[in-house]
Amino acid sequence: MPFTADGARPRLEVFVLPGIGEIRAGDDLAAIILAVAGPAASRLADGDILAVTSKIVSKAEGRQVAATDREQAITDETVRVVATRAHPGGVTRIVENRQGLVMAAAGVDASNVAEGTVLLLPADPDASARALCAALRAATGLELGVLITDTVGRPWRDGQTDIAIGAAGVAVLDDLRGTTDAHGRRLDVTVAAVADEIAGAADLIKGKTSGNPVAVIRGLGHLVAAVDAGDRGARRLLRDSANDMFRIGSAEAYAEGYAAGVAAAGGGASAVASASGATREPTTAEDAAELRERAPSTLPKGQDAVTRETPAGDLPGGARSAGANGPEVATHSGSASL
Amino acid sequence: MPFTADGARPRLEVFVLPGIGEIRAGDDLAAIILAVAGPAASRLADGDILAVTSKIVSKAEGRQVAATDREQAITDETVRVVATRAHPGGVTRIVENRQGLVMAAAGVDASNVAEGTVLLLPADPDASARALCAALRAATGLELGVLITDTVGRPWRDGQTDIAIGAAGVAVLDDLRGTTDAHGRRLDVTVAAVADEIAGAADLIKGKTSGNPVAVIRGLGHLVAAVDAGDRGARRLLRDSANDMFRIGSAEAYAEGYAAGVAAAGGGASAVASASGATREPTTAEDAAELRERAPSTLPKGQDAVTRETPAGDLPGGARSAGANGPEVATHSGSASL
Repeated sequence: MPFTADGARPRLEVFVLPGIGEIRAGDDLAAIILAVAGPAASRLADGDILAVTSKIVSKAEGRQVAATDREQAITDETVRVVATRAHPGGVTRIVENRQGLVMAAAGVDASNVAEGTVLLLPADPDASARALCAALRAATGLELGVLITDTVGRPWRDGQTDIAIGAAGVAVLDDLRGTTDAHGRRLDVTVAAVADEIAGAADLIKGKTSGNPVAVIRGLGHLVAAVDAGDRGARRLLRDSANDMFRIGSAEAYAEGYAAGVAAAGGGASAVASASGATREPTTAEDAAELRERAPSTLPKGQDAVTRETPAGDLPGGARSAGANGPEVATHSGSASL
Repeated sequence: MPFTADGARPRLEVFVLPGIGEIRAGDDLAAIILAVAGPAASRLADGDILAVTSKIVSKAEGRQVAATDREQAITDETVRVVATRAHPGGVTRIVENRQGLVMAAAGVDASNVAEGTVLLLPADPDASARALCAALRAATGLELGVLITDTVGRPWRDGQTDIAIGAAGVAVLDDLRGTTDAHGRRLDVTVAAVADEIAGAADLIKGKTSGNPVAVIRGLGHLVAAVDAGDRGARRLLRDSANDMFRIGSAEAYAEGYAAGVAAAGGGASAVASASGATREPTTAEDAAELRERAPSTLPKGQDAVTRETPAGDLPGGARSAGANGPEVATHSGSASL
């Protein structure tokens, strides 16, 4: 629990660093941030965490690419299709992308970029965070942390929140397991995803169109100090899909089960054809609608029965390998229930 | 975008109100909060939002119930089983509860309560928030907002975050659709779940065992002012399950599809029996393990094929009715992709 300098009362402050203009490929983000932060000693302090919108990191890293076909760009960034849904404007694809993140459109961003281009996420957001953090620490002599943030939707709840997709110098999880409550009972499933909560707090004042892509979070120095022993970045927050109870959409899993059930029962050729059609990926809204028509009539209401698994090995380079999270994340996955 | 009094720079402050002791059934939460807040004029201000941990609201409302069987308490609070998973200590149930929230164990809390009892969530967290907000506003004359918060896990990402399960006097969604980005393109799928981001920010300083169940968020007065025209509470954040691509777990949907596929293909009695067994709900870890053994061998690795849909009508009273979110939420569900 953080305390202010007088030790009296936990207090958190979040403020933006205004004045960061349009970022271009090759820009030195650390220098730009320090320029708008003013004299470091007066504006930044030990333990401060900088939450940086991924968009400006991508732009600085030249991740803006020509895209006559945004859909192809999404396909190229996809490691695994999680769920798809047709809507009047096309097909929304929820996928696991090369960074291991599950998000709509693989994180490919078509807003706030020049016409005819799209913006990809940083190739390795943790590496981007490490480089930025190291440069800021070297220039200021301060113990700073860096989070790279992006905006995502989530199951079950409407609206979007910001999460941390990259981290350096900040503990992303605050593990309270093993501590006891006021009655002496063990708190066995409390591992707070503090990096995501920090990203959300920063979003509250950064806004989306305000031109304030960097916020400073002050008052969580204990999370900055906590990573001295090792810094594994925001990748620690990724749950291994094999351990995820929601690794694919309900309709997609239903369609897979349906096909397997038909096969197991020795179904005829027509039944199998219907099931395999339902697992083909749609490329247009019309295609998706047609697949939906062919899907099992018992499909849960409001869901599309369309999916395709894209094995990581099918993709050229950069695909996330199984077990990339390492054993530590597996431990969290195994014990922390929803 | 919030600005400080001098209009210069968005800034957010979050601080706890220390000194709130153990809460008992019948306690007047508003009076207790005001007592520790000190003279309202000096400690609270127009536009402040109070994030109150649901646990103390439940305790004040007498939601602590005797429970020799925590599992039965969870069953009683469940409207719909979303997913289950067996682990060495038993079976984790992710369910939609009476409040419409999807969470583990229906939100039934066995920590920080007296032995032999469990704590249920407030029966109507929005109503609790409204009552508390009205009392605080009446006593202080200030335009305050109230969020009631709880801790939840989420698919795809490890760790837990705090969300808003009740709200009054605060806009829970900040709808940026229709606004344009710096290049004049429409931002068509950005609806920020600000109430959840505020809950997360508060959690960063409240901690879990610190005895600081109330935090004040200052600097988001625009969200407090925004609800003058109507206040529909945190229920607006609940996505209708019929519109949710992840309404049930992957393994559960697979098992449903498998059974339907077997039936459609005219499978024999043994195949159907296997499928129906896979959709029976387990009540013990051993039972779950047995069901897993009987489940289709092609089941995705690491998943349990066990679920049961509990129609709301099967439960005595209080079950969430379809369409309770009203048309406004349906609009959000329909347009806001993940």
